[in-house]
Amino acid sequence: MTVRLGLLGAGRIGKVHGGAIASNPGARLVAVADAFPEAAAALAGQYGAEVRDVDDIMGASDIDAVLITTPTDLHATMIEQAARAGKAIFCEKPVDLSVSRVRECLAVVEETGAKLMVGFNRRFDPNFMEVRRRIDAGVVGDVEMVSITSRDPGPPPFDYIPRSGGMFRDMTIHDFDMARFLLGEEPVTVYAAASVLVDRKIGELGDVDSASVVLTTASGRICQISNSRRASYGYDQRIEVLGSKGMVSAENLRATTVEVADADGYRRDPLLDFFMTRYTQAYANEIAAFLKGVSGDAPLAPSGEDGLKALLIAEAAVLSATEKRVVTL
Amino acid sequence: MTVRLGLLGAGRIGKVHGGAIASNPGARLVAVADAFPEAAAALAGQYGAEVRDVDDIMGASDIDAVLITTPTDLHATMIEQAARAGKAIFCEKPVDLSVSRVRECLAVVEETGAKLMVGFNRRFDPNFMEVRRRIDAGVVGDVEMVSITSRDPGPPPFDYIPRSGGMFRDMTIHDFDMARFLLGEEPVTVYAAASVLVDRKIGELGDVDSASVVLTTASGRICQISNSRRASYGYDQRIEVLGSKGMVSAENLRATTVEVADADGYRRDPLLDFFMTRYTQAYANEIAAFLKGVSGDAPLAPSGEDGLKALLIAEAAVLSATEKRVVTL
Amino acid sequence: MTVRLGLLGAGRIGKVHGGAIASNPGARLVAVADAFPEAAAALAGQYGAEVRDVDDIMGASDIDAVLITTPTDLHATMIEQAARAGKAIFCEKPVDLSVSRVRECLAVVEETGAKLMVGFNRRFDPNFMEVRRRIDAGVVGDVEMVSITSRDPGPPPFDYIPRSGGMFRDMTIHDFDMARFLLGEEPVTVYAAASVLVDRKIGELGDVDSASVVLTTASGRICQISNSRRASYGYDQRIEVLGSKGMVSAENLRATTVEVADADGYRRDPLLDFFMTRYTQAYANEIAAFLKGVSGDAPLAPSGEDGLKALLIAEAAVLSATEKRVVTL
Amino acid sequence: MTVRLGLLGAGRIGKVHGGAIASNPGARLVAVADAFPEAAAALAGQYGAEVRDVDDIMGASDIDAVLITTPTDLHATMIEQAARAGKAIFCEKPVDLSVSRVRECLAVVEETGAKLMVGFNRRFDPNFMEVRRRIDAGVVGDVEMVSITSRDPGPPPFDYIPRSGGMFRDMTIHDFDMARFLLGEEPVTVYAAASVLVDRKIGELGDVDSASVVLTTASGRICQISNSRRASYGYDQRIEVLGSKGMVSAENLRATTVEVADADGYRRDPLLDFFMTRYTQAYANEIAAFLKGVSGDAPLAPSGEDGLKALLIAEAAVLSATEKRVVTL
Repeated sequence: MTVRLGLLGAGRIGKVHGGAIASNPGARLVAVADAFPEAAAALAGQYGAEVRDVDDIMGASDIDAVLITTPTDLHATMIEQAARAGKAIFCEKPVDLSVSRVRECLAVVEETGAKLMVGFNRRFDPNFMEVRRRIDAGVVGDVEMVSITSRDPGPPPFDYIPRSGGMFRDMTIHDFDMARFLLGEEPVTVYAAASVLVDRKIGELGDVDSASVVLTTASGRICQISNSRRASYGYDQRIEVLGSKGMVSAENLRATTVEVADADGYRRDPLLDFFMTRYTQAYANEIAAFLKGVSGDAPLAPSGEDGLKALLIAEAAVLSATEKRVVTL
Repeated sequence: MTVRLGLLGAGRIGKVHGGAIASNPGARLVAVADAFPEAAAALAGQYGAEVRDVDDIMGASDIDAVLITTPTDLHATMIEQAARAGKAIFCEKPVDLSVSRVRECLAVVEETGAKLMVGFNRRFDPNFMEVRRRIDAGVVGDVEMVSITSRDPGPPPFDYIPRSGGMFRDMTIHDFDMARFLLGEEPVTVYAAASVLVDRKIGELGDVDSASVVLTTASGRICQISNSRRASYGYDQRIEVLGSKGMVSAENLRATTVEVADADGYRRDPLLDFFMTRYTQAYANEIAAFLKGVSGDAPLAPSGEDGLKALLIAEAAVLSATEKRVVTL
Repeated sequence: MTVRLGLLGAGRIGKVHGGAIASNPGARLVAVADAFPEAAAALAGQYGAEVRDVDDIMGASDIDAVLITTPTDLHATMIEQAARAGKAIFCEKPVDLSVSRVRECLAVVEETGAKLMVGFNRRFDPNFMEVRRRIDAGVVGDVEMVSITSRDPGPPPFDYIPRSGGMFRDMTIHDFDMARFLLGEEPVTVYAAASVLVDRKIGELGDVDSASVVLTTASGRICQISNSRRASYGYDQRIEVLGSKGMVSAENLRATTVEVADADGYRRDPLLDFFMTRYTQAYANEIAAFLKGVSGDAPLAPSGEDGLKALLIAEAAVLSATEKRVVTL
Repeated sequence: MTVRLGLLGAGRIGKVHGGAIASNPGARLVAVADAFPEAAAALAGQYGAEVRDVDDIMGASDIDAVLITTPTDLHATMIEQAARAGKAIFCEKPVDLSVSRVRECLAVVEETGAKLMVGFNRRFDPNFMEVRRRIDAGVVGDVEMVSITSRDPGPPPFDYIPRSGGMFRDMTIHDFDMARFLLGEEPVTVYAAASVLVDRKIGELGDVDSASVVLTTASGRICQISNSRRASYGYDQRIEVLGSKGMVSAENLRATTVEVADADGYRRDPLLDFFMTRYTQAYANEIAAFLKGVSGDAPLAPSGEDGLKALLIAEAAVLSATEKRVVTL
């Protein structure tokens, strides 16, 4: 079966997914919608698709599934519309920045029986997938402590910060999902120590830029997350999992393996510093997993429920950092 | 300008190049030919191309360039035919196993003024390209010593060995091209110490499976190559260049960065062990370079002359190993 | 000037320090005392020293300084006795497990004007010293986040646990000192998430074996510490410091650089797994620093005050873990 | 039994060995001789030994063994004198730069039944010892190819070059010994490609500064050695052994594990760049092995015969490089 797709949002990430669909023999990009018609036309043209408006895509009989890659504030409404139209849905994270709006939206998804996958791309990174596979294979025994280092190369544009939901909902939410993916148990307490160390302006906008977060589970497993909005050496994305039998870890990625040695020492390049380059393979795997799930061969994961749970941890982290106390989920 | 292509040979490497063409917006695969019509049909079908026979492709007015990915013994004749037909030509290495046949063929190429590129894929590996870029940028000063480690994960099928031209013409030829690419000067002497250590059967077939080769240039630069037909730990492909100011090196590639630590130590996976996986990016870059050259934006390299020079070094290595003496080129 | 020393305690660590004194041309081991006369005699004999009892050493006119390497419960009393006797004092950490007893003891030190150095050996590890040197040289800019991974190869004997003061006072106290050494600012809040994951028996003895601790400073700097009483792969001792300009880190140590590659992958040995082997150089540097300080060339650090401050953080960590809340220092 | 030693030569390496003896409980430094009485006195004073002249040491009844660390041209004569005096002998490499003089000297050693160990310190490097141990344990199967990278940080003083015997006898001789140590079979052919790339002055003095050497054994095992008199990044000393089952390697050493990451990339320090620092542990292990052998617990190795064999390979390498041909041993 070929999955016929409509793409809602022809921006940066929409293009990535458009390309992933085009190169997948089991999928066909049928239509593209965007608030900017030129953007939709350019993307549609590249892959032999049509430009349609959102309602047309939602109502189309020649479209099986939609990819929602619009700005965040449209996600929940579009999910509801697509769910009611009987489309399978892939939506970029987050479903919404408001927990109550997410719950409302997921109620519609449940009621309509729609298939929904939320875009936590990092679960599909080959390195992190392999870490999970080793855990599942028992290589490290019982998981005890998860350490996630997650630092952006630099802060986002200041005008994005007020609508980002804050660092915990915007950036750390990926780490919360990864923590759930690796801990094998739900977090029950959250402690977040957060500071403004990178740029005062971020603080003036009501956000933070540096944080350590500790999650604990009912059986005592512990996850620690180290976040910063600035890592001069690139996009720092590492994972370590300590278990009763040993440790499994995944390291950062570079463009090449080249090293130069001279009187100043041994030098390797900085890390890949753009999320789309760092996670190229993850995005491709993610869309492949969605297409496979839509074709009926596999359940869709991460689900809407996964999106909600990560958001609830982010809310708790905001509360913890603000009130400087441990928050129970 | 869109380059319109005919593919001659729908085997393993033909498929790789077919995919590279399909994903390149500046190229279109028009026709495929293969001795096995089903193979041609399958590949043509996948990318919306036609099945044609070789003569039709050579004579077609809707085809600008051909990719020759047939068995080696057809290369030279096809190059000549394509050259006379005015097509731009990409041909997998080697042009031929016989030096005189290669010279004959290149004479036709010269006479017809045809554009010819020979497929030494490793020049296009991002890691090795970057090594060369650093050398060109003066990072290591004057090149003094090049060290190439080049070991296959395992020997080829025994029935391939007699028609392979022997290890030096089949496998080390890539390293000879790489040596020329990095030394910045032509080799003038060759010494090859070769043994049968991996499998006696290889020796019985008249070939060798393990070798150290040393090349020297007129100004005294030295290149050493370490070859084996067996590396249990994967496809070992490393380069080091020592210069007057320092050293630049490129390391092996693995599927992931995952490491496991336990009471037995720290373990990473074996290397990628299949040349098409190891050099995926190199093959894509190579075809992109060919298309760019055909479109007129860049000279075609490596050229037929490059193919000949690598073969001449291989011949000298065979002579050196057989007669256990240094051979002057 | 040759520093003449008395060694109080001829156990495991006493022997290490005895050897360090013997190989230092600026020092001479004059006398050794131990509750077990045979132990004192063996050590004294090896280095040409005499066996004396504690009071004799304290009162001796041919002894300038004492090294206290007895069990912890004797530390404070001996420090006081030596201080009153006018000896310079090196005492293994901790001064005492009770904060009030430490304060009492330090009051005597202050009143007598005695020179006191407390044995936090890790400050003298060449790798961690170099991390600090780079910070001091401004290489990473302003320190923002410190990450300490500190895991023992295996839990201590069960009978030691009740008198150890618990994991935070016994083991993490080294990390608290290291945090202070690297943060460049005093911690003001402590959060410790602690669990019993390694061995239930440890929990039955009232202790924990796994923890994540987060410290914050007045300006918002953050330190996270990951502790476990078990790391199957060796004694895991790593440090990372993120600053405004970059990151500096120190890795673990192995006995050799040997790596084996085969069909199962690439394997290096587990880490050095014994603290005296891992920190051999640190112990030697530490005693050298003490001797240098006693000779008058440098201040004695870490001081008694440093010992007290690390203990206060440990106390706060115990309280935080017990009451599951953030504790302000 | 305590081995009583006389040290002949109080220079740089004499001091290293003097210190090794002093810290070894099974040995005692009784006397030191040197052409410069002050040098002898300083070293003797440091370790409680006497200054004596060479003849006194040779004839002394309170000395069991001598360490010869004089300039090379005195080695053979002193070995003969000590052999006739019934002393056990440790002599720094080489026995002599002339093969015939070495043979003469070893004849005296054999005739007198003297115990002689030649100082090829690298065999005692913990990393290279471990490589050998893994080979002996069968970890890599049958040894097939040995690769030695051996590069000095910089050339020796020009006035040393004429009396050094040339690079192959002075520097590569260590690699020839290492090749024999690891190949498990005697080399039968030698090819050396040598150049003057580092400094023209070296060539004017009749020596070379850069070389690749290939050795082969009767069964077809191959060793390649890469030498340079200059490596801007430190003292480059690496080994790789490829066998039928896998590869074992030993890497370079640095002073610390510290790494800095910033916008320019990841940087580690250059390598240790002084042979006495790089091989500190090797020198200590070497003297310990000599003392153990003298006490009767173990055979003395490397022997005088080992010294001769390495020199014969060096001679062959000189001939090969000069006549640009393969030389059979």
